[in-house]
Amino acid sequence: MSDQVAALEARLAQLEDRLTRAEDIEAVRKLQYQYGYYLDKTYYEEVVELFADREDTRVHFLHGVFHGKAGAQRLYTGRFMTKFADGHNGPRYGRLLDHPQMQGVITLSEDGQSARGRFRSLMSAGNHETVEGFRQWWEGGVYENEYVKVDGQWRIKVLNFRSLWQGQFDQGWSKAPVEYAGYLTDTYPDDPHGPDEIVDDWGMFPRTETVPFHYDHPVTGNPVTD
Amino acid sequence: MSDQVAALEARLAQLEDRLTRAEDIEAVRKLQYQYGYYLDKTYYEEVVELFADREDTRVHFLHGVFHGKAGAQRLYTGRFMTKFADGHNGPRYGRLLDHPQMQGVITLSEDGQSARGRFRSLMSAGNHETVEGFRQWWEGGVYENEYVKVDGQWRIKVLNFRSLWQGQFDQGWSKAPVEYAGYLTDTYPDDPHGPDEIVDDWGMFPRTETVPFHYDHPVTGNPVTD
Amino acid sequence: MSDQVAALEARLAQLEDRLTRAEDIEAVRKLQYQYGYYLDKTYYEEVVELFADREDTRVHFLHGVFHGKAGAQRLYTGRFMTKFADGHNGPRYGRLLDHPQMQGVITLSEDGQSARGRFRSLMSAGNHETVEGFRQWWEGGVYENEYVKVDGQWRIKVLNFRSLWQGQFDQGWSKAPVEYAGYLTDTYPDDPHGPDEIVDDWGMFPRTETVPFHYDHPVTGNPVTD
Repeated sequence: MSDQVAALEARLAQLEDRLTRAEDIEAVRKLQYQYGYYLDKTYYEEVVELFADREDTRVHFLHGVFHGKAGAQRLYTGRFMTKFADGHNGPRYGRLLDHPQMQGVITLSEDGQSARGRFRSLMSAGNHETVEGFRQWWEGGVYENEYVKVDGQWRIKVLNFRSLWQGQFDQGWSKAPVEYAGYLTDTYPDDPHGPDEIVDDWGMFPRTETVPFHYDHPVTGNPVTD
Repeated sequence: MSDQVAALEARLAQLEDRLTRAEDIEAVRKLQYQYGYYLDKTYYEEVVELFADREDTRVHFLHGVFHGKAGAQRLYTGRFMTKFADGHNGPRYGRLLDHPQMQGVITLSEDGQSARGRFRSLMSAGNHETVEGFRQWWEGGVYENEYVKVDGQWRIKVLNFRSLWQGQFDQGWSKAPVEYAGYLTDTYPDDPHGPDEIVDDWGMFPRTETVPFHYDHPVTGNPVTD
Repeated sequence: MSDQVAALEARLAQLEDRLTRAEDIEAVRKLQYQYGYYLDKTYYEEVVELFADREDTRVHFLHGVFHGKAGAQRLYTGRFMTKFADGHNGPRYGRLLDHPQMQGVITLSEDGQSARGRFRSLMSAGNHETVEGFRQWWEGGVYENEYVKVDGQWRIKVLNFRSLWQGQFDQGWSKAPVEYAGYLTDTYPDDPHGPDEIVDDWGMFPRTETVPFHYDHPVTGNPVTD
C-alpha cells in the first residue's frame, strides 16, 4: 500500500509542476498584455513598475540599451514622458499611441524561474491635427523579451523591442526613408534621457534583419538565423 | 497511512481547483474570440445567444447602455442588423466589418463563477465602392467585459465596448472630427432600436480617457486611473 | 483504504488528461504563432518543416489545394520563395510580408490526437519604393486549420488560409477589383509551382462568404453557415 501512495505522490508532484508551468506561461502573457495597455495610455510610471529591479535589467529601444531600473526610468518617465505626454503620467488629449500586443511565443526555462517571450505589435499613432506636432503613422515591431519570477510574481527583465517599419499614414512603409533618422546615438549623461549603450547591428525597413529567435525550430531543433 | 492519504486528497483538490481556473481563463478567451468571428460576419442572432439571460446583462455602445438580453437583441438584431446587414442575419455582399479580438487580460473571481476581461480590436470596415453607402474606415477600441458561468458554461454578462478612435481610410484618426457625431442620444422606445440609458462620460479621439481597468497594477497593487 | 487510493488514482488520471488537453491547446497556438513568425521573414524551408508528412496533408491558397508535404514544398519553397524572396530562404532587403497571427479558437478532438484551429491575420505587405516591383497593400484573412500530434509533437496537417480582402495601401479594400485576378487556375505540372487541385467555391471581397466554422455555436449547439 505505501508503494501505491508513494507512486501517487510522485504523479501528483509531477502534475503540480506541469500546472505551475502552464500557469506561468499565462502569467507571462498577461504581464506583457498589461504592459501594452499601460504603454498605450502613456502610463509610464506604471510601465516602469513592471520591471525587475536588477543590475541586468535592460530596455532596448532604437539602438539604445538602457541599464537597470534606473535606465528604464530614464527611457519611460524621462524620454517618453517628455516626448509623448508633455511630462505628465497618463493619457493626453489628442495624442494616440495604440500599441496592441499579439502572437506571444513563450518559453519557460527548465527551472521555471525565468522565461522568454516573442510578441509583436501593429501600432496606430500620432497627434490629432488640432494638436501641436501633428503627424500620424503606422508602425510594426517585434519584441524578444526576458522575464523573471520574483517572489512568485513575474516581472520584465529584458524588454527588447525592435521597431521594424514605420509608415506615414498617407505614404506607408514602402516610402519610408532608406536610412531611418531616429536611432538613438548619444549615451547618458551626454543625452540626459539617453541610453547607457548603443548597439546598432540592425536597421528599420527597407532593412529586414530578423529579430533573433529565442527558440530553435520546434521540429528540426535547428536555430533559425539570417 | 490515512494521514498520508488525506494529505494527498487535499493536494489533489487544490490542483483540481487550479486547473479549473486555468481552463476557465481559456474558456473566456475562446468565448470572446467566438463572439468576434460572429460579429465580423454580422451573425447577430448568434452574437445575442452568447449573452447570459439576466436582468443585469448589459451592452455598452457609443454612450448607449442596453439592458438585459432584450436590450442586446435591440442592439444586434435590431439596430446593427438594419444598419450593417440590410435586415439579414449573416454576411452581405460588399460589406466589410472585420473586428479582430486581441490582447485579453482575464481575471477570474475568487469563486470562479464570474470573470472580467479586457480585450481590444483594430477594425477594417466599410462598403465596397460598388455598394450603396460607400465609405471605408479604420477603428480602434477596447473592451472591458464581464462574464458569468451558467450551468458550467461561460456567457457574456456585460459587454462594454468603447470605440476609441475612427479614421476614414484616406484621412486617418488624426483628422477625425473634434466632436464625434455618432453617439447614441435617444433612448428606447423613442428610438425603437435605442438603448435603455445614456452614459456620456467619455469621448472618442481626440479625447483620450482611459477605459477603466478592471484590475489594479500587478506589482504595486494600486488602481490606475486618469 | 485501498478504495480510497483507487479513488485518488482515478481523480489523478482524470486530472492528467485535462492538463494534457490544456497543454495541447497552448501547444497548437504556439505552433501557429511560430509558423507566422517564419512566414513573415520568408523562412519557407522552416515553414514546410512544420507540416506533418502525410498523404492527407493539405495547403489551401487562393483556390489552389496542394497535396502532401511535396505540395507544401511546391507552394512555399517553390512558388513563394520565387515570388517573394528571389529564390532565397530568409528575409530580403526591401520586402515586407508582416503576417500577424491572432484570435485562435482551438478545438481538440476527443482523443486529443488532433485539433482544429481558427486564426486570423491582418497583413502589412509590399516592396520598398526603391526595390523592383514596388507596390504595398493591406490584407485580411482567416485560417481554418487542422493539426495532428506526431510522436507527442504537434504538426500542421491542413493549412487552409483564405485571403478575405486586399487593399492597395492608398486605395483600400473598398476599391478592390470586383473580380480578384490572382486566384490559382493551373494545376501541377502545367504550372510547375501549381496546386494539385482547384477549389473555387469562394471569392475575395467584395464577396463575403464565411470561412466555414469548425465548431458549432457554443450555446445553441447549432452549426453556423451562410
